[in-house]
Amino acid sequence: MAGPRGEYRKSAQRREQIVEAAFAVFAKAGYTASSVSQIAREVGMTQTGVLHHFAGGKTALLKAVLERRDERAEQVLEGRRGTEFLAGLVEISREQADLRGAVQLYTILSAEATDPDHPAHEHFRDRVERIASAVANAYAEAGEDGALREGVDPRAAALSTLAMTEGLELLWLNGQDVDMAEGIRAHINTFLTEPVRPAPAARRTAAPTAR
Amino acid sequence: MAGPRGEYRKSAQRREQIVEAAFAVFAKAGYTASSVSQIAREVGMTQTGVLHHFAGGKTALLKAVLERRDERAEQVLEGRRGTEFLAGLVEISREQADLRGAVQLYTILSAEATDPDHPAHEHFRDRVERIASAVANAYAEAGEDGALREGVDPRAAALSTLAMTEGLELLWLNGQDVDMAEGIRAHINTFLTEPVRPAPAARRTAAPTAR
Repeated sequence: MAGPRGEYRKSAQRREQIVEAAFAVFAKAGYTASSVSQIAREVGMTQTGVLHHFAGGKTALLKAVLERRDERAEQVLEGRRGTEFLAGLVEISREQADLRGAVQLYTILSAEATDPDHPAHEHFRDRVERIASAVANAYAEAGEDGALREGVDPRAAALSTLAMTEGLELLWLNGQDVDMAEGIRAHINTFLTEPVRPAPAARRTAAPTAR
Repeated sequence: MAGPRGEYRKSAQRREQIVEAAFAVFAKAGYTASSVSQIAREVGMTQTGVLHHFAGGKTALLKAVLERRDERAEQVLEGRRGTEFLAGLVEISREQADLRGAVQLYTILSAEATDPDHPAHEHFRDRVERIASAVANAYAEAGEDGALREGVDPRAAALSTLAMTEGLELLWLNGQDVDMAEGIRAHINTFLTEPVRPAPAARRTAAPTAR
């Protein structure tokens, strides 16, 4: 018989499956046009079953999907400072090239969420501000370490770096042959005296002998 | 009695009203979640009435809305070459700051349209390529005129300029205090030996005495 611990594990797995399904449905239809019943169908559950795990409904599902994307970025950047942090942004971007669905979903959601009435509006505003602050902080640290070009304002450099990141993603999704990671690296390096190194190749594109 | 000419004018006015309504509805709900019946309600017509003017339905309405945005840009850029063309991009961006609804709609549509199944997918792919080519051409002309920095590739500079433009729009829509026109100008100037001048203030912000 499954004890409370087994029940807990089963519930966590269910939540995980639901978040995966929400991700797929949002990626296909955008947030606005998606419904909890579609997500339930995708995972073979009833709408009531999904709401048992996500009482907040579609908004709660959106939050879970968005948080998942940021977890990986936090993992890469944890404990880094200055130019090492900025190099981490290039590494994250390198990984994105293998995650078209995720990049597309995020791009659609962040565009929809520019509407002040959108349930994720605050989330995206706060997220942009949080990332801008963290990147500005990294540029400021680069300055302390003597790696920032004279006259560069850390906050302005951070916003410029974010804009370039989002913009390259959109061009890439729109079929342009751009190397996002290299584009971001080149842009970051315009602010630095000590250039950031290229990101290592992502797993999928690693040499076959590396297995 | 209204002759055929009067009828034609009336029909053109109706089309114009419908495109305005489509613009408003798409801007609010995104393309995917919008319906022709909503647009018809907005303009006080029946769905059949709207389809009489736009037989292609929602897709045809989307096309009309997208074309309208580009008409203004073409007007600004017509007959310009090299750095004058690039200065035009800064001027267009300056105008955008007064057109939040239009920028938001375009951002949502271009994000949704990254899905290959979206009816505007080809439109956006082609549009990005057309603009990238035109901007690359302007950088190449700047090169012929001796205004391009050594080693700058016109195509790479063009893609970078587009990415910065799209990215700054998204940051601005997400509540960041960025001056889009100045951001784009600064970015363009990193590629030039002869800096592009600031854009004149948009009409809305002109001095009251100018009326």
